[in-house]
Amino acid sequence: MTFPVVGMVGGGQLARMTHEAGIPLGIRFKLLSDTPQDSAAQVVSDVVIGDYRDLDTLRDFARGCDVITFDHEHVPFEHLRALEADGIPIRPGPDALVHAQDKGVMRARLVEIGVPCPRHRIVADAADVAAFAQEVDGFPVILKTVRGGYDGKGVWFVRSREEAEEPFRAGVPVLAEEKVDFSRELAANVVRSPHGQAVAYPVVESRQVDGVCDTVIAPAPDLSEELSGQAQELALRIAADLDVIGHLAVELFETTDGRILVNELAMRPHNSGHWSQDGAVTSQFANHVRAVLDLPLGDPRPRATWTVMCNVLGGDYPDMYQAYLHCMARDPQLKIHMYGKDVKPGRKVGHVNTYGDDLAEVLERARHAAGYLRGTITE
Amino acid sequence: MTFPVVGMVGGGQLARMTHEAGIPLGIRFKLLSDTPQDSAAQVVSDVVIGDYRDLDTLRDFARGCDVITFDHEHVPFEHLRALEADGIPIRPGPDALVHAQDKGVMRARLVEIGVPCPRHRIVADAADVAAFAQEVDGFPVILKTVRGGYDGKGVWFVRSREEAEEPFRAGVPVLAEEKVDFSRELAANVVRSPHGQAVAYPVVESRQVDGVCDTVIAPAPDLSEELSGQAQELALRIAADLDVIGHLAVELFETTDGRILVNELAMRPHNSGHWSQDGAVTSQFANHVRAVLDLPLGDPRPRATWTVMCNVLGGDYPDMYQAYLHCMARDPQLKIHMYGKDVKPGRKVGHVNTYGDDLAEVLERARHAAGYLRGTITE
Repeated sequence: MTFPVVGMVGGGQLARMTHEAGIPLGIRFKLLSDTPQDSAAQVVSDVVIGDYRDLDTLRDFARGCDVITFDHEHVPFEHLRALEADGIPIRPGPDALVHAQDKGVMRARLVEIGVPCPRHRIVADAADVAAFAQEVDGFPVILKTVRGGYDGKGVWFVRSREEAEEPFRAGVPVLAEEKVDFSRELAANVVRSPHGQAVAYPVVESRQVDGVCDTVIAPAPDLSEELSGQAQELALRIAADLDVIGHLAVELFETTDGRILVNELAMRPHNSGHWSQDGAVTSQFANHVRAVLDLPLGDPRPRATWTVMCNVLGGDYPDMYQAYLHCMARDPQLKIHMYGKDVKPGRKVGHVNTYGDDLAEVLERARHAAGYLRGTITE
Repeated sequence: MTFPVVGMVGGGQLARMTHEAGIPLGIRFKLLSDTPQDSAAQVVSDVVIGDYRDLDTLRDFARGCDVITFDHEHVPFEHLRALEADGIPIRPGPDALVHAQDKGVMRARLVEIGVPCPRHRIVADAADVAAFAQEVDGFPVILKTVRGGYDGKGVWFVRSREEAEEPFRAGVPVLAEEKVDFSRELAANVVRSPHGQAVAYPVVESRQVDGVCDTVIAPAPDLSEELSGQAQELALRIAADLDVIGHLAVELFETTDGRILVNELAMRPHNSGHWSQDGAVTSQFANHVRAVLDLPLGDPRPRATWTVMCNVLGGDYPDMYQAYLHCMARDPQLKIHMYGKDVKPGRKVGHVNTYGDDLAEVLERARHAAGYLRGTITE
């Protein structure tokens, strides 16, 4: 058969779950991973161990792949261009991916296409930050390294000019953003294929703790049809205008005065879409695979009234197996997703999904399981 | 973490789909496969290529596995005993598995524990068959090789003493069974764990074409609650009495006079349970993994009113990829499961699942997709 080979760069849990979703599709998977112990490397047959920052490694890896896609945004832009010049389909392509790699480029482009964003500016030093703060109703403001931040890393909540010194010490470009007065965070997830087909998942509510995603509720409770439609249209428009191929997560603020503003973009399967594995007809992972291969996309609609995802973070106790037994016994409907990672405090090592008709109960079940696995709940 | 390693003997599609189900559970998988091209070997990281009929190969393979389970029933009984003597947990164990390996042993044991079976007898030659036929209202009767038959292979529908010569030519033991007057075939699937927990899936209807499973409907339409309960209890009783660990499929005849009789047993995930991947809270594959590891079992209840599975058989055209594109485009809710196998006429190369509230529509969608992939439907 001529079933294609997907080359996945990066061995994290997103690659692991994309491989899982590719198995029933009959798709062959080839993985470029840093180490054989990486989450995805544990479960994929065809693994190349190597450094994604090295162009020769990428070129060797790309041989025998029908398309290249990504577990993360860190492959250097110029390498992606070089691979593209070699004739390898890169999905999403470098011209799209740069918007997920560089927050400065992303903001400039979104403003250009009329997408509502927090007020922002590239800043060179603390004085710049202070001037920006004056324009946006004063401190606090948010500073972000333009490249490489995630899960609260590379992000500073700055309350004064003095606190604004720190982010510049690394000597990397910094973006300042107003502190948005938001009531909650939402995410609009869409998937788009090369021939332009696109699907939109229900807009979800995403709750963060200490800058890390903690809970996702699908669909977002009490979200007006109007805002939900706006968020989906916005995400579809960004996907089309930026020519994104594959999964695009648009993280949003819902402001206290009822608007939505774009916070971040991710061009790969995303934590805010993990609920779809057990809660949607077609998961984000399956649709990402389908999109990068230009296969017809699957139905993104929910299968349950409510689906809740809670991340499982590592706690103080390194062995989760006994807690895992307990959670399975307590809730036979619980959907556990473990990443095969060593437990370290605060590290994402898995997630759980629950679904049903009663949101309070569905939420309680997911929270209990995640808390029990982490060790913060002990009964 | 101390997450365990499951050793899977056999590289077919059942192993492939069990691995897929083990990924979210965080379970490590080690595979003993005949060739690197086998269905499961394409998607598992830790693969040993070797012959399951060789005890030394099995012993080498078992090192580093916390438990051994199976994709098929063909590992020699005495090898399983030897591994067990080495201290390796074998699940299901040899004393259970022998009932799936040897139809003579199976029939004798089921009769002993009071399970209703077709009338049957071990026969030595055509004269024996003729004598048996006289006792069961005459020809036709069914002859089966006691070991090694599957999917209609090793089974003869015999209309006369003359036709009864053929099965004895191979010189292997043969079982004669009456031709049961049945209205349809059912399957009762259960999963049992070492500590004795067991779950029962809804009883399904299984339709065969030319001795090969074609369509499975879950739950079996118009099955009385009484017969459904009887079938589930029967399967749970067989699992307990035979000390089956893991998935047990009990294939049944529903007779025209409203009884159920046991046709075959399989002690592994089974074609009649494939619907559960998309139609049940916990699939047969996930529950098989949970059972062999003595983890608490997951909920076997259906997620949809109706789920239909149709097998995808190979047709005359060796490349299914274009047909696969067409099916995805036609039905975005279709769940395709491809096995990564080369297409040969009549070979099972995948299956499709559909689900919904309207049985006629759900059935039509599954049949259309399976027929289109095979090439017997061209619009």
